[in-house]
Amino acid sequence: MTATEERLIDPVLERVKTGIEAFDDLVMGGLPRRRTTVVGGTPGSGKTVFATQFLAHGITDLDEPGVFVTFEESPADIEVNMASFGWDIRGWREANKLAFVDASPRDTDQMVVGDFDLAGLLARILYAAKNAKAKRIVLDSITQLFDHFVTDEKAVRRELLRIATALKKEGLTVLMTAERNSEYGEISRHRIEEFVADNVVILRNALDRERRRRTIEVLKMRGSRHVEGEVPITLVSEHGMVAVPLSSLRLEQQSSSKR
Amino acid sequence: MTATEERLIDPVLERVKTGIEAFDDLVMGGLPRRRTTVVGGTPGSGKTVFATQFLAHGITDLDEPGVFVTFEESPADIEVNMASFGWDIRGWREANKLAFVDASPRDTDQMVVGDFDLAGLLARILYAAKNAKAKRIVLDSITQLFDHFVTDEKAVRRELLRIATALKKEGLTVLMTAERNSEYGEISRHRIEEFVADNVVILRNALDRERRRRTIEVLKMRGSRHVEGEVPITLVSEHGMVAVPLSSLRLEQQSSSKR
Amino acid sequence: MTATEERLIDPVLERVKTGIEAFDDLVMGGLPRRRTTVVGGTPGSGKTVFATQFLAHGITDLDEPGVFVTFEESPADIEVNMASFGWDIRGWREANKLAFVDASPRDTDQMVVGDFDLAGLLARILYAAKNAKAKRIVLDSITQLFDHFVTDEKAVRRELLRIATALKKEGLTVLMTAERNSEYGEISRHRIEEFVADNVVILRNALDRERRRRTIEVLKMRGSRHVEGEVPITLVSEHGMVAVPLSSLRLEQQSSSKR
Amino acid sequence: MTATEERLIDPVLERVKTGIEAFDDLVMGGLPRRRTTVVGGTPGSGKTVFATQFLAHGITDLDEPGVFVTFEESPADIEVNMASFGWDIRGWREANKLAFVDASPRDTDQMVVGDFDLAGLLARILYAAKNAKAKRIVLDSITQLFDHFVTDEKAVRRELLRIATALKKEGLTVLMTAERNSEYGEISRHRIEEFVADNVVILRNALDRERRRRTIEVLKMRGSRHVEGEVPITLVSEHGMVAVPLSSLRLEQQSSSKR
Amino acid sequence: MTATEERLIDPVLERVKTGIEAFDDLVMGGLPRRRTTVVGGTPGSGKTVFATQFLAHGITDLDEPGVFVTFEESPADIEVNMASFGWDIRGWREANKLAFVDASPRDTDQMVVGDFDLAGLLARILYAAKNAKAKRIVLDSITQLFDHFVTDEKAVRRELLRIATALKKEGLTVLMTAERNSEYGEISRHRIEEFVADNVVILRNALDRERRRRTIEVLKMRGSRHVEGEVPITLVSEHGMVAVPLSSLRLEQQSSSKR
Amino acid sequence: MTATEERLIDPVLERVKTGIEAFDDLVMGGLPRRRTTVVGGTPGSGKTVFATQFLAHGITDLDEPGVFVTFEESPADIEVNMASFGWDIRGWREANKLAFVDASPRDTDQMVVGDFDLAGLLARILYAAKNAKAKRIVLDSITQLFDHFVTDEKAVRRELLRIATALKKEGLTVLMTAERNSEYGEISRHRIEEFVADNVVILRNALDRERRRRTIEVLKMRGSRHVEGEVPITLVSEHGMVAVPLSSLRLEQQSSSKR
Ligand SMILES: Nc1ncnc2c1ncn2[C@@H]1O[C@H](COP(=O)(O)OP(=O)(O)OP(=O)(O)O)[C@@H](O)[C@H]1O
Ligand SMILES: Nc1ncnc2c1ncn2[C@@H]1O[C@H](COP(=O)(O)OP(=O)(O)OP(=O)(O)O)[C@@H](O)[C@H]1O
Ligand SMILES: Nc1ncnc2c1ncn2[C@@H]1O[C@H](COP(=O)(O)OP(=O)(O)OP(=O)(O)O)[C@@H](O)[C@H]1O
Ligand SMILES: Nc1ncnc2c1ncn2[C@@H]1O[C@H](COP(=O)(O)OP(=O)(O)OP(=O)(O)O)[C@@H](O)[C@H]1O
Ligand SMILES: Nc1ncnc2c1ncn2[C@@H]1O[C@H](COP(=O)(O)OP(=O)(O)OP(=O)(O)O)[C@@H](O)[C@H]1O
Ligand SMILES: Nc1ncnc2c1ncn2[C@@H]1O[C@H](COP(=O)(O)OP(=O)(O)OP(=O)(O)O)[C@@H](O)[C@H]1O
Ligand SMILES: [Mg+2]
Ligand SMILES: [Mg+2]
Ligand SMILES: [Mg+2]
Ligand SMILES: [Mg+2]
Ligand SMILES: [Mg+2]
Ligand SMILES: [Mg+2]
Repeated sequence: MTATEERLIDPVLERVKTGIEAFDDLVMGGLPRRRTTVVGGTPGSGKTVFATQFLAHGITDLDEPGVFVTFEESPADIEVNMASFGWDIRGWREANKLAFVDASPRDTDQMVVGDFDLAGLLARILYAAKNAKAKRIVLDSITQLFDHFVTDEKAVRRELLRIATALKKEGLTVLMTAERNSEYGEISRHRIEEFVADNVVILRNALDRERRRRTIEVLKMRGSRHVEGEVPITLVSEHGMVAVPLSSLRLEQQSSSKR
Repeated sequence: MTATEERLIDPVLERVKTGIEAFDDLVMGGLPRRRTTVVGGTPGSGKTVFATQFLAHGITDLDEPGVFVTFEESPADIEVNMASFGWDIRGWREANKLAFVDASPRDTDQMVVGDFDLAGLLARILYAAKNAKAKRIVLDSITQLFDHFVTDEKAVRRELLRIATALKKEGLTVLMTAERNSEYGEISRHRIEEFVADNVVILRNALDRERRRRTIEVLKMRGSRHVEGEVPITLVSEHGMVAVPLSSLRLEQQSSSKR
Repeated sequence: MTATEERLIDPVLERVKTGIEAFDDLVMGGLPRRRTTVVGGTPGSGKTVFATQFLAHGITDLDEPGVFVTFEESPADIEVNMASFGWDIRGWREANKLAFVDASPRDTDQMVVGDFDLAGLLARILYAAKNAKAKRIVLDSITQLFDHFVTDEKAVRRELLRIATALKKEGLTVLMTAERNSEYGEISRHRIEEFVADNVVILRNALDRERRRRTIEVLKMRGSRHVEGEVPITLVSEHGMVAVPLSSLRLEQQSSSKR
Repeated sequence: MTATEERLIDPVLERVKTGIEAFDDLVMGGLPRRRTTVVGGTPGSGKTVFATQFLAHGITDLDEPGVFVTFEESPADIEVNMASFGWDIRGWREANKLAFVDASPRDTDQMVVGDFDLAGLLARILYAAKNAKAKRIVLDSITQLFDHFVTDEKAVRRELLRIATALKKEGLTVLMTAERNSEYGEISRHRIEEFVADNVVILRNALDRERRRRTIEVLKMRGSRHVEGEVPITLVSEHGMVAVPLSSLRLEQQSSSKR
Repeated sequence: MTATEERLIDPVLERVKTGIEAFDDLVMGGLPRRRTTVVGGTPGSGKTVFATQFLAHGITDLDEPGVFVTFEESPADIEVNMASFGWDIRGWREANKLAFVDASPRDTDQMVVGDFDLAGLLARILYAAKNAKAKRIVLDSITQLFDHFVTDEKAVRRELLRIATALKKEGLTVLMTAERNSEYGEISRHRIEEFVADNVVILRNALDRERRRRTIEVLKMRGSRHVEGEVPITLVSEHGMVAVPLSSLRLEQQSSSKR
Repeated sequence: MTATEERLIDPVLERVKTGIEAFDDLVMGGLPRRRTTVVGGTPGSGKTVFATQFLAHGITDLDEPGVFVTFEESPADIEVNMASFGWDIRGWREANKLAFVDASPRDTDQMVVGDFDLAGLLARILYAAKNAKAKRIVLDSITQLFDHFVTDEKAVRRELLRIATALKKEGLTVLMTAERNSEYGEISRHRIEEFVADNVVILRNALDRERRRRTIEVLKMRGSRHVEGEVPITLVSEHGMVAVPLSSLRLEQQSSSKR
């Protein structure tokens, strides 16, 4: 164990509130600080909403600046999309509370693919984080990151680990989104993300007899207790993601077990 | 964020009516302007009908010219096929309200495959759009686009993004159709389209005890509320696609929950 | 749009009767003229019977000569097999009403594979069609065509389109059979045929508690209404394929809904 | 159509009795002469028993000599195995009524793989057939043939056709066995055999709540009516394969529909 | 047929008792002498127990020495593992009744892979068999054999046959174990073993509502009747594998059919 | 059999207590000494908890030092994560009772992949074990090991065996964790681990109507009886993994069978 690592050890897992209140209750107060959480889900399941809300709460309530690394959606689009939840992304950006790193291949006319780029990208991200004195960082989504940057499928696991390690070393709490191809199928797209991450949260938007049902589940949280199983959620204008509080869930269970 | 992007930001998502009335109600008035919507479905599920109706409504009711990029069906065939729905495609073409870009490999005797062609194609499309002062554009289907033009499976995601970005920059509202191999299976053919697009609509034509049942579903719409779950549709001569209005759906649910 | 294409436009889809009466009722009078129909099915589902009956009806009742392109079964075998349905293939051949193109690799001692052959084959087919003044053409089956001739899996879609286009240009109504590996599984073997064709008909021969059940279904018909869902069929000596007429189907439904 | 082919045409499909009586009733008297039948099944489903019984009946009752081409089991092993059914293979061999072609790779120390060998093998088979004045020929199994001889997976279809054509030209009635990996799964191993053959018979040995149930089914028979669906069979010492006669099947159905 | 083969013919299949009494009843007295039996199963299903018991019975009760070819477990480990069943492997080894051939890649520092090694291995095996005057031989497991030795997936079938033939020529009764990935799934790992072998026995250890259920089934036995379907088994200390005797199975069925 | 191997033979399988009491009862007292146990499970199923508890019990109660080889999680992270179970990893490390081998690719800037590294890694592990006089060793997880180190998929089986053999030779009891992609699916990721290991334990965390259910199962244990089927477990702060004792399971069964 190196001296740097030694210094990082901290017997109690400090918590970072996400701002999704009923959710923070599921994870004993928030996501563990300086750890990596993967939020997986199908298209439109709410990954970007979750990630933005995590940054928003840090900026508006706790004075923790953030970095948003986007791999396909332009920062401008995210700004508009998140406006419907009442988040003033432009304001935060101007107040230097939020920095975007646009890692999409959109603007570049040519594209050099390979690990070299990934190193360059990591440098840009670290620079932005330092500049903004960021404490929270979002990578939306790592699936895109790997589809765009990593040529060798076998390198995905190693690169994912390398990035997570570098960001944690800077004291950042990392939230990565990951694409899943089906609601209850196996693991996420590259089938590795959920093993490598410290924590895994799954957003579902399942079709059940012509209706959709949205839920959130904490699949794993290394070093910590957490509520297990699926909890219903809603997306609400001017609020963002809202989970059903545990108390109502338990009431529901009591009444249903009474029958 | 570049100056160009800055200029594009528009806090309210302006809506583009599709002309499929009950459908526009599902999406708070229409598809978001200057965004990309993917309409996915199996063979014969109604993708081309949906796309043409979207252009037709713009041309006949809102004076918004359109471009129809076709990758296999000839413009002539589309003209005939859509006549049964009462759409005078030839008239619009002659009035310079609708421009076709025929990107099918049919007529060309030889075929140069690769990204170079794709750039050429994009130039042709942009030229047609400018010429027609188009506001709406249809690409039917992007699956064919990728099967014909993109040799490297890994490049699909990047190219899809590049095209969408270029078209949105021109102020166009983009509708792309995508082929799905099964009704309730995973994602569309290249398994990427539904993540990359801003909005995803799914057309289904499911076999249920020897009968077919047609439905439409808004799977995702970034930055906007929308009705969730499947809604029955019909294809009607002289009208096109018709969705069951929400009010009747709710009545149906009330009465069924009374039982 | 080129001048040639312009000339081909015909606002009303003219119909070509198949001779399978109850079936023609399912498709508003017949298959659209100068279009491509794919008939898919498992081994023994009746693809060759359907295709031959289509040619037979043209020859005997409507004076429309035909071309039968066969890729594995020898013309002699087809002649014998179809005799049990009362079709005098030899007579038609001698009266120059039916021409066979034998594209099977049987007789050739060596085999040059590649697109060059495909071009040669197309030339032979067009020559036979012109010679016989054919109006209808059958390719039985395109799956064999691609297994034998196309080395590059990626070229299947393009070649399929090229052939269909060339034949339609000659005014021919095209019927292609396609092999399916399972009754209710996904799409046909190369997973592309059913998207590329103008019309898709599926023949099923499903095993249901030790019995077989034969049905026909019109999956898609571009530019036209058609009856949807599965309709029972039988194969009858001296008659060929016979579908259950719509009227009896409806009676059956009424009585069953009365219960 | 060449002159040779012309000569082969025979408007009525002559029948070759298999000797499995209740089975011959299923196929209007027997397998069509000078045609190819594929008998598919899982390990131990009875493929070799069916094939040997087909040869046995020709030899003992109809004076039709046969050829048995074996690709893995040694002729000696087959002789012993079939003795339990009362078939005197050694006697037939000595009376020159049955010829074995041992095409197994067992004895050869080295192995030259490729189409060249296949041509050599075909020559050996034809020679044996001519020598024995054979009318019936068994290839057990073609799956092994392809696993051993054909290096290029794409060539399987072509080679299968070439062999069948060559044997039919000699006036032989061909029976090929094929390996299936599951009882009710898709098609046989190379997924092509059942499309290429003129006739397909399936032997099943399905596990149903810890018991095995053996059945036979005629899946397809080009140019002929046949009973459809599964029929129970048994393997009986000193008799071979015995199918349940149709009459008892119908009685059973009547009585069961009375309930 | 060569002279050697002629000599091997033996109209009655002589039996080799396995020592698993209730099992020998399932197969008319034992496994056929000088034949190949494949015993397939998932991890821990009892393949090695079955194989050792087969050798043990030969050694202790019938004075038939044996050879145990092991591909991963060391002979020492097998000795310890089988001690719990009361088998004195060390004693047999010392009395020269049992010879081990250790074909695991464990001890070798480098590894030459290819058919050459396989020939060398076969020589070692034959030498050991001759030395011990062995009548029975176990290869545990052939899946490992192929994973370790055969580089070309296409060669598996040929090599398997070559080994079986060589061993049978020496008069040995061959028992090979094979790895299966699921209880009721298709065939064993290389999907070929169960077609090539003369006899196939399947060991299952299925999870049924949180409990495990062990069964044995004789799937095929060329040239012989045998009981069909699954029979429950147990593994008993100091005894080995014990199958439920047929008589109790029948009683159970009678009583259950009485209800 | 070499002299070294001879020496290793030990007719009775000595047991190594895991410290998970109710679990040790399932396996007749503990895991067999000097053997390899694979613990498989999905993300967050408790593999690392099981492995650490195994080392903890050895260190605190039995004076058996241990080695923890980690392939992705840093030793520092594991220290923090396991603190919530009351394990003082830092203390043990300082008392030289526990040695970490950090085999993660995190810190290394470049990465030489291949068997050479694996040999180097094995040397480091053996050195650490000797230094700490370790009796127990954990490799968490071998899936990562193979994803990072082994380039040739075919070599996985051989390398796994080589490592296990080397560690057992040093008298170590080996516990390896393995990643599984689904709860009740086939085998673990590389589909080989569960055949190669001496013992297999499966941890499940299955989703059952929105709730999670954790269980443990001993799938196989060579040379030993063990309880079969799934047993419920819980993860408890300050305790670690706790299995439901057998006695309560039996009571539950009795009471449920009374109904
Ligand atoms: N104001 C709103 N009110 C309610 N729901 C909304 C609102 N805005 C967006 N949504 C819902 O949120 C969904 C988009 O969520 P989000 O962008 O977080 O999904 P995602 O998982 O990131 O998807 P992708 O994989 O496409 O990036 C929309 O499809 C819509 O259903
Ligand atoms: N006039 C009409 N009235 C009713 N239904 C019609 C009419 N015309 C076409 N249809 C239906 O519309 C279907 C074709 O729809 P469309 O061409 O939009 O499908 P698609 O999803 O684009 O299919 P593909 O993948 O083959 O391009 C036909 O199969 C038919 O069922
Ligand atoms: N005279 C007849 N009466 C009734 N059924 C018949 C008659 N002749 C043939 N059949 C049925 O038709 C089937 C063959 O149909 P056909 O050759 O059209 O099938 P296919 O789909 O072309 O099969 P393949 O893929 O093998 O070419 C036979 O298997 C048989 O069941
Ligand atoms: N005398 C007999 N009485 C009853 N059944 C028998 C007798 N002899 C063999 N059998 C059954 O026949 C089966 C073997 O049949 P056969 O060899 O024809 O199968 P197969 O389909 O050719 O298998 P493979 O794919 O292994 O070659 C045996 O497994 C056994 O169940
Ligand atoms: N003395 C015993 N009493 C009861 N059961 C035992 C005894 N010894 C071993 N077993 C059972 O036998 C199993 C091992 O059987 P065996 O080694 O034959 O399996 P296998 O199919 O060869 O597995 P693998 O694929 O791992 O080699 C153990 O998992 C255990 O369940
Ligand atoms: N103090 C605690 N009390 C209860 N449960 C806990 C506690 N700490 C951790 N857990 C549970 O243990 C899980 C982590 O277990 P562990 O790290 O052993 O899983 P794993 O199988 O090794 O996963 P991975 O594949 O990600 O390494 C957490 O997801 C959490 O559910
Ligand atoms: Mg998103
Ligand atoms: Mg279309
Ligand atoms: Mg046919
Ligand atoms: Mg056989
Ligand atoms: Mg074993
Ligand atoms: Mg872990």
